[in-house]
Amino acid sequence: MNAVSSTRAICVAVVGVGLVGSEFIHQLLAFPTPNPFRIVSISSSKATLSSLHGLSLSKSGWKSDLTNSSATTSKQKVSDLVSELSALVTPGQKVILVDNTSSQEVASEYPEILKAGINIITPNKKAFSGELSLYEKILKESMDSGARFLNEATVGAGLPIISTLKDLAATGDKVLKIEGVFSGTMSYIFNEFSTVQGGGPSFSSVVRIAREKGYTEPHPADDLNGADVARKLTILSRFIPSLLSSLPSGYLSVSTRSLVPKELEDVDSGDEFVRRLEEFDAEFDKMREEAFKEGSVLRFVGVVDVASGEIKAELQKYPFTHPFATSLGGSDNIIMFHTERYGARPLIVQGAGAGAGVTAMGVMSDLLKLV
Amino acid sequence: MNAVSSTRAICVAVVGVGLVGSEFIHQLLAFPTPNPFRIVSISSSKATLSSLHGLSLSKSGWKSDLTNSSATTSKQKVSDLVSELSALVTPGQKVILVDNTSSQEVASEYPEILKAGINIITPNKKAFSGELSLYEKILKESMDSGARFLNEATVGAGLPIISTLKDLAATGDKVLKIEGVFSGTMSYIFNEFSTVQGGGPSFSSVVRIAREKGYTEPHPADDLNGADVARKLTILSRFIPSLLSSLPSGYLSVSTRSLVPKELEDVDSGDEFVRRLEEFDAEFDKMREEAFKEGSVLRFVGVVDVASGEIKAELQKYPFTHPFATSLGGSDNIIMFHTERYGARPLIVQGAGAGAGVTAMGVMSDLLKLV
Ligand SMILES: NC(=O)c1ccc[n+]([C@@H]2O[C@H](COP(=O)([O-])OP(=O)(O)OC[C@H]3O[C@@H](n4cnc5c(N)ncnc54)[C@H](OP(=O)(O)O)[C@@H]3O)[C@@H](O)[C@H]2O)c1
Ligand SMILES: NC(=O)c1ccc[n+]([C@@H]2O[C@H](COP(=O)([O-])OP(=O)(O)OC[C@H]3O[C@@H](n4cnc5c(N)ncnc54)[C@H](OP(=O)(O)O)[C@@H]3O)[C@@H](O)[C@H]2O)c1
Repeated sequence: MNAVSSTRAICVAVVGVGLVGSEFIHQLLAFPTPNPFRIVSISSSKATLSSLHGLSLSKSGWKSDLTNSSATTSKQKVSDLVSELSALVTPGQKVILVDNTSSQEVASEYPEILKAGINIITPNKKAFSGELSLYEKILKESMDSGARFLNEATVGAGLPIISTLKDLAATGDKVLKIEGVFSGTMSYIFNEFSTVQGGGPSFSSVVRIAREKGYTEPHPADDLNGADVARKLTILSRFIPSLLSSLPSGYLSVSTRSLVPKELEDVDSGDEFVRRLEEFDAEFDKMREEAFKEGSVLRFVGVVDVASGEIKAELQKYPFTHPFATSLGGSDNIIMFHTERYGARPLIVQGAGAGAGVTAMGVMSDLLKLV
Repeated sequence: MNAVSSTRAICVAVVGVGLVGSEFIHQLLAFPTPNPFRIVSISSSKATLSSLHGLSLSKSGWKSDLTNSSATTSKQKVSDLVSELSALVTPGQKVILVDNTSSQEVASEYPEILKAGINIITPNKKAFSGELSLYEKILKESMDSGARFLNEATVGAGLPIISTLKDLAATGDKVLKIEGVFSGTMSYIFNEFSTVQGGGPSFSSVVRIAREKGYTEPHPADDLNGADVARKLTILSRFIPSLLSSLPSGYLSVSTRSLVPKELEDVDSGDEFVRRLEEFDAEFDKMREEAFKEGSVLRFVGVVDVASGEIKAELQKYPFTHPFATSLGGSDNIIMFHTERYGARPLIVQGAGAGAGVTAMGVMSDLLKLV
């Protein structure tokens, strides 16, 4: 049981209890006593449980409590939740909304949430990778109210990517280039498809297997179009002062080379998409072959080149000796920070960049930063 | 000029202004205005400049001010500095002592410093890698007073190593094993000496060149004895609850295989040491040859095996395909965290683990955590 704690406990409202949200609540309830957090609200897309004095949740029962509550109450609108929470905000009393959805609707409320003095922690990329105007509103409201937004888990899940980038900037280093494999799905696909040994399975078969293993979205085009990588690049770029305003339409402004064949762009069914992807195997094979002849492998990467201002998501070749060729495996992310201080040899962070456990860890570590 | 800021500025006393300390002051003075920090004291081993209202320091002049002051005043004893600083500690007023020395004398004062409510930030390994009794005093005084100690830069300089380890633990992950190349000097030496190509220069010649480039201590035995690695392992182990008490004598309790030949242990001169190291080239050659035949390279690593409780610093073989063989270069550190959540594929951090700029960055990022 999560003992309802004293008045000075940090109030946490959790919106979204899917894979990441459930794991996050699990980590929160497992926090060693005295648990400094008081969960005041949890909601799925269908139901809300809330009590400003703190919900009494058990590890095994909270989910059914929430589901059952949908019979009697309906889901609270985010704006109503914010009004309720804002009553809790007083000097010395921190209130935090944790957005574990991928909802654009919730993301659009961030300026209002911050304006009310409520801090935001989230793995949801939408607000930070969309229109610059929304992002600027978020910055402004955060500045004005002092409420903070932390989004470590939006890039690399639990890996220290955003915190590292912020540290580099805050301590006066100059980031020159960020280059990395940012999508776990793309990492898996190309680690299987293009190796230093050469040859290997067809592209469509690799995608099919990745899908069967649950590594891709239900419709693989949602991974292969590169939008997820473009979103992450947008989020990172906006922490670099000189690039803050360079992507007016967010991820849509990133130069992105989609791997979805033109002819399959309108295929709505994931099953059909994978089947028809076979027609393009020869094309992918040729690219792999060409790279191999040059002593290179193919990797789908994201690059932020600060000096030129170029921000791009695309398939590139890397020599057999490059860390993207030698040291990647599974669905690892790997991110290299080239900076003035680190000089010729970049700072590198590598590891699983997806999965509920590590993503919730990224969310949780942000929460601990606010304590 | 560092404008003397308002009363609520965070008071910073800097002890030690060598390579790292100077760079740290540089970063502090370059902080964007309004600069939240007020430098109240700086000292070298010979002189102290202090003013509780805030020193007025210029980027170009502070060093000569300090040197000149040694003519009139002498260096303040750390205990006297602490008494002075403790007068500044009030609720809502943070006071931080930044220890940029490698002094055991200063390290021994940490319990008193924390007891006085003064926070400590430091790249100095001494206090955390020595006797357990000192470390326990530090923990106790920090707990009692609420003053914190942050030591990110003691391991991997500016790389996010300690913060990552703390995040893993705080969010409920279980660290199973930490394995890495923790010494920039050892990294350089073995990256040059033992490669996937096989063969290569003699051990003594590599050490000689490393010394000429300033990568080793004046006496290379101080690197080759493995003590620096053992110290770093001690610091990390003490963040893992089950290992907290397992190294009663600190780094001396770490199972360390020194690379200093028995016969050279008493050679006091660095020059003579390097010259006589030649006599052992055949031995190192043989090890390299044996490793190569197995398809491996030699790396001097530190390992913390949490389950077995084994903590060791030693020369080990790694297959040609291992990241320690493929992705290391220069004097990079690389650290792998194997954890329950990350599963089969570890979280990896890599990059320069020494150098004044990146070390001061580690110190500075700790400072920002306290703001
Ligand atoms: N999973 C990962 O490995 C990973 C990695 C990095 C980042 N992320 C990000 O983390 C977030 C969550 O991912 P996930 O895998 O947990 O997704 P998920 O399993 O689909 O969960 C999403 C949750 O949000 C709820 N929801 C949707 N719209 C809502 C609304 N308007 N109000 C309240 N709740 C709403 C859903 O409710 P119902 O259950 O009622 O549908 C569901 O509980 C996403 O932004 C994702 O991009 C995930
Ligand atoms: N340099 C690196 O790459 C690196 C990397 C990681 C960690 N570190 C750690 O960072 C610390 C500083 O390293 P560094 O390279 O800057 O060393 P350094 O250049 O030798 O500087 C040490 C400074 O400490 C001063 N000092 C010594 N004892 C003192 C005392 N009792 N009171 C006041 N000042 C005292 C010295 O004064 P004088 O100038 O008067 O002698 C000098 O200014 C060390 O603990 C080191 O292990 C360094």
